[in-house]
Amino acid sequence: MDRSFTVAELARHVGGTVEGNGEHRIQGVAGLETAESHHVSFLANRRYAKMLPESTAGAVLVSHNERDAKNAPTLIFCKDPYTAFAQVLQLFHPTRRPEPGIDPRAYVAPSAQTEGATIEAFAWVGPEASVGSGSWVQAGVRIGAQAIVGEDCVLMANSVVCDGCRLGDRVWLNPGAVVGGEGFGFAPSAAGHTKIPQVGTAVVEDDVEVGSNSCIDRAAMANTVVRRGAKLDNLVQVGHAAEIGEHALMVAYSGVAGSSHLGPFVTMAAKSAILGHLQIGQGVQVGVGSAVHDNQQDGARITGNPAIPHRTWLRAATAFKDLPDIAKQVRRLEAKVTKLESGLGDHPIIQSPDDEEL
Amino acid sequence: MDRSFTVAELARHVGGTVEGNGEHRIQGVAGLETAESHHVSFLANRRYAKMLPESTAGAVLVSHNERDAKNAPTLIFCKDPYTAFAQVLQLFHPTRRPEPGIDPRAYVAPSAQTEGATIEAFAWVGPEASVGSGSWVQAGVRIGAQAIVGEDCVLMANSVVCDGCRLGDRVWLNPGAVVGGEGFGFAPSAAGHTKIPQVGTAVVEDDVEVGSNSCIDRAAMANTVVRRGAKLDNLVQVGHAAEIGEHALMVAYSGVAGSSHLGPFVTMAAKSAILGHLQIGQGVQVGVGSAVHDNQQDGARITGNPAIPHRTWLRAATAFKDLPDIAKQVRRLEAKVTKLESGLGDHPIIQSPDDEEL
Amino acid sequence: MDRSFTVAELARHVGGTVEGNGEHRIQGVAGLETAESHHVSFLANRRYAKMLPESTAGAVLVSHNERDAKNAPTLIFCKDPYTAFAQVLQLFHPTRRPEPGIDPRAYVAPSAQTEGATIEAFAWVGPEASVGSGSWVQAGVRIGAQAIVGEDCVLMANSVVCDGCRLGDRVWLNPGAVVGGEGFGFAPSAAGHTKIPQVGTAVVEDDVEVGSNSCIDRAAMANTVVRRGAKLDNLVQVGHAAEIGEHALMVAYSGVAGSSHLGPFVTMAAKSAILGHLQIGQGVQVGVGSAVHDNQQDGARITGNPAIPHRTWLRAATAFKDLPDIAKQVRRLEAKVTKLESGLGDHPIIQSPDDEEL
Repeated sequence: MDRSFTVAELARHVGGTVEGNGEHRIQGVAGLETAESHHVSFLANRRYAKMLPESTAGAVLVSHNERDAKNAPTLIFCKDPYTAFAQVLQLFHPTRRPEPGIDPRAYVAPSAQTEGATIEAFAWVGPEASVGSGSWVQAGVRIGAQAIVGEDCVLMANSVVCDGCRLGDRVWLNPGAVVGGEGFGFAPSAAGHTKIPQVGTAVVEDDVEVGSNSCIDRAAMANTVVRRGAKLDNLVQVGHAAEIGEHALMVAYSGVAGSSHLGPFVTMAAKSAILGHLQIGQGVQVGVGSAVHDNQQDGARITGNPAIPHRTWLRAATAFKDLPDIAKQVRRLEAKVTKLESGLGDHPIIQSPDDEEL
Repeated sequence: MDRSFTVAELARHVGGTVEGNGEHRIQGVAGLETAESHHVSFLANRRYAKMLPESTAGAVLVSHNERDAKNAPTLIFCKDPYTAFAQVLQLFHPTRRPEPGIDPRAYVAPSAQTEGATIEAFAWVGPEASVGSGSWVQAGVRIGAQAIVGEDCVLMANSVVCDGCRLGDRVWLNPGAVVGGEGFGFAPSAAGHTKIPQVGTAVVEDDVEVGSNSCIDRAAMANTVVRRGAKLDNLVQVGHAAEIGEHALMVAYSGVAGSSHLGPFVTMAAKSAILGHLQIGQGVQVGVGSAVHDNQQDGARITGNPAIPHRTWLRAATAFKDLPDIAKQVRRLEAKVTKLESGLGDHPIIQSPDDEEL
Repeated sequence: MDRSFTVAELARHVGGTVEGNGEHRIQGVAGLETAESHHVSFLANRRYAKMLPESTAGAVLVSHNERDAKNAPTLIFCKDPYTAFAQVLQLFHPTRRPEPGIDPRAYVAPSAQTEGATIEAFAWVGPEASVGSGSWVQAGVRIGAQAIVGEDCVLMANSVVCDGCRLGDRVWLNPGAVVGGEGFGFAPSAAGHTKIPQVGTAVVEDDVEVGSNSCIDRAAMANTVVRRGAKLDNLVQVGHAAEIGEHALMVAYSGVAGSSHLGPFVTMAAKSAILGHLQIGQGVQVGVGSAVHDNQQDGARITGNPAIPHRTWLRAATAFKDLPDIAKQVRRLEAKVTKLESGLGDHPIIQSPDDEEL
């Protein structure tokens, strides 16, 4: 990379304003600690504000909260320094797209459309499938019959789009990601389980990223849908006929079971699970390692198995380590109270009746 | 699809009886809410029985419990409507099998047998391997040396059968599934860990389905075995020398560690784990997110980490949120009892103030 | 395999000493229960010592603790029988390496170096990449541009090394393993999430094994590093800019979030998670299903979500099932104390002695 930009150019790119030398030339991006004078850095977390005076960065993207920073290097004030950092990093490192064309070692069915796309060796594009212009299909990808891949997508090595499934534009599949594998549907019986043919599809809308080896199943009759802008980390699972809302975030190992619907901007922390046939409202946040058994209102923040309000969980989880001591203390109190009862004068004590079963 | 069947034909196919117009022609399958007059639908859960009179389906598969349904559309009575639904869906949507033959872009070792199978471009079949008639080996599949794949299997894109491993008949591997990767066996030491060669194999019996990116490891000396009819969801893990019983169900992210043996019809819910070297009896049900640390008797229903009887877990998990309140209450009781012990005769008892929030 | 060795040769190989017939010829390795006279077996767990007299093995690898074993078969005394077993198994089953050379159906960029390596059909080696001598690149592997693979590596079917990433020597990637997929980095905002280009790399040092379908992400700016000798099971996740210490063990489904650093010899049990930006000391052991929220000192043994000291967790987890009973008991005590408060006589109360420790 030998791109370079002036501080002023970067500020313009992120919609920010410069305090310091706008003409200084920047050649790359680095963290606050390691940045040198030809780097732009960023301060997204005020916890690190004390590092600002010591930074040798050529410029630092900061929020307006740092207006009064003293002895700081050149600053670029912007609304959201972390987004600005992402934008500047994109500027210095645009996604490299190879030349369009079909490698002669690829297989593209005669009835498939791949004009303007890059199809590497050993990619397989089935009958009546289409791949949009600007899309990059790496080695080992299999795009099934009648599948549709939009424009400017990246399908990394060995990712799979099964028959009839659809990707929007700018979808990014990491290596080994699977869109449209069989939903887990069987009618169970004592004689064995009868497969329910999964004849629906899976649809991934624009600007979705799917992590390495993540799985989005096709549905039995309807569609599984991942709405635009959702970002799925590695090893994520989306069950058949589930719907993931716009701009949802699913961190590694988070999974949604069949037929559950997530609203927009839901965040699932690592290893969290949403059971089947649930409605999860907009902006719900699910904590690490949780299992959600019930419908959730918009904005709920929940954790645990079963998931309960996060603050309640946090207090209970904190008290958990004291449980053996509590049990001991209760036994001690029981003994004391029994003694108190037996030492009571002449007032008859009536034993309270056993509690009923819960 | 332009298959169509009369209601009577469908009833015959599922071993049911018609109440209504058996001559009506059905062209597809749909859910109760969306079914139109050319669809057959099903009612498997009595919770939805109230939707029956409003359904515009051409026919509905129901159990004998609905004998007295009023104002219902044409009904097909059968023993198990959900299995019948699966059978009817299979009738309308038989698995499409491409023509047998080896794509010239595939690699099939001269010593391999693949007669009657379909081998797509970029599939790799190693020396002395065999693939049975009617099996479909998609692009990117690698079948190792001396591996055996039975008849009528589906090996979807990029699934892998390692050297010497064996699949029975009608096995379905979803994309990225791995049969026979290295078992996780190392002799640990302070100088580093010595690999234990995994020279056993992995065996998958008839009618097993393995989900996308699931892994069945080969064993060090014996075999890892998945018995016939077991169904494994996506991202499932079967450790080396484990045995999964007939018709077991393993939901997404469920995992069995090395050398554990599961009886038939075990059900592992999502994200559950069975630790190593355990015996898990027939029909055991493991709840979501559980970790099983001990052997389990036939029919046990367990949940939690460590897993305990499900009802016990459910009561404890329900009480969990109250733990901080219980702790507070115990502290309050302690104070009261101490006062009682010190002999507060005729002194008025002052209620201790509520604890502050933690 | 028709290798055979005398007992004395095996003893020499593992640095042990023979008690019995050193000239006896051994043709393979088997477990204590199944070993016949031409097998060598091992006793690594004293729990099975009682099986020793009944074993029909030709020789058994044992520790010096078995010095006084009576009626035992020929014994090979060694310091660590399990490591010795691994060494002997390696002796009988050396990793089969195919002949070096590039299959004409592979793609190797003209600028790539693969001298002395085996490149199977449908493997893809990008521009300026290099693969060291003795390495075996199976079908469906994609090695990205400028990626480096060391010597004597095994890259099993459909594993992936992304652009610019590096493997040391003797690295073993199981099928579907991904090194250098995109880190999960987005600047979130109400208008959608901006991708943070992941322009760092992933580095896997010597003697690391990575399980089937495991994922090691590339970093945004720095490197993700898995240090030498670490062993990763299947479906493991290493987040961007994380560092896994030397000889760490990560069991199935264990995951480390972005920017966390693990010291050497850390062990993560199955399904455990380490959250982001943490420092985990040398030799830390994380229990099954745990989520680590905090930095950990060297040698800590922790379990739970949030992870707490293992012994504390074990006591609390054991008491967990009693929580409903404790709650009930507290309610009963409350009632009794209320009665006592309302009717105390004049009898002296004797303080009950402190409970003993559990």
